[in-house]
Amino acid sequence: MIRHSVIFKLKHHKGSQEEALFLEKANALSSIPGIQNFECLKQVSPKNKFDFGISMAFENETLYQQYNNHPDHVYFVQQYWLKEVEDFLEIDYVPYT
Amino acid sequence: MIRHSVIFKLKHHKGSQEEALFLEKANALSSIPGIQNFECLKQVSPKNKFDFGISMAFENETLYQQYNNHPDHVYFVQQYWLKEVEDFLEIDYVPYT
Repeated sequence: MIRHSVIFKLKHHKGSQEEALFLEKANALSSIPGIQNFECLKQVSPKNKFDFGISMAFENETLYQQYNNHPDHVYFVQQYWLKEVEDFLEIDYVPYT
Repeated sequence: MIRHSVIFKLKHHKGSQEEALFLEKANALSSIPGIQNFECLKQVSPKNKFDFGISMAFENETLYQQYNNHPDHVYFVQQYWLKEVEDFLEIDYVPYT
């Protein structure tokens, strides 16, 4: 199991309509096959500069890559992510054994 | 529900005994009351500089603060975390509604 997440900050003002629309589009990615436990999250620690997170899990690397290459994900990245996100960090976790 | 996590990099060499000992001590924090879904994780994305993560959940802010102030956690931070961790980022997520 791989838990993929991204923590990010938008260029939009907090609480703006643009912010809500972006998160709505991000949330729609949850319909891509292979995704488990999709969550759209609010980041509330004052110890980092980010405001949101998206977290999801994949059973294996193949499903993760299928998501990465899925047309809906590629479109989202090109049309919205690259234009509207100010800064981000991608994190991939697997169990520590 | 608050999901508290920290992503970090140790001063120790990868695969060293010191690394294993540190993670064992970190894992022991899971016995502190109020913690749910405690996980010790390996960070595998090449897109950031961190190697490990610890993730846990709290039902509410009070339980989170009880953990923060618990003697076992305070001791761990003073004796091990501050000495053995090279860099880290704390993240607190709540559901986006």
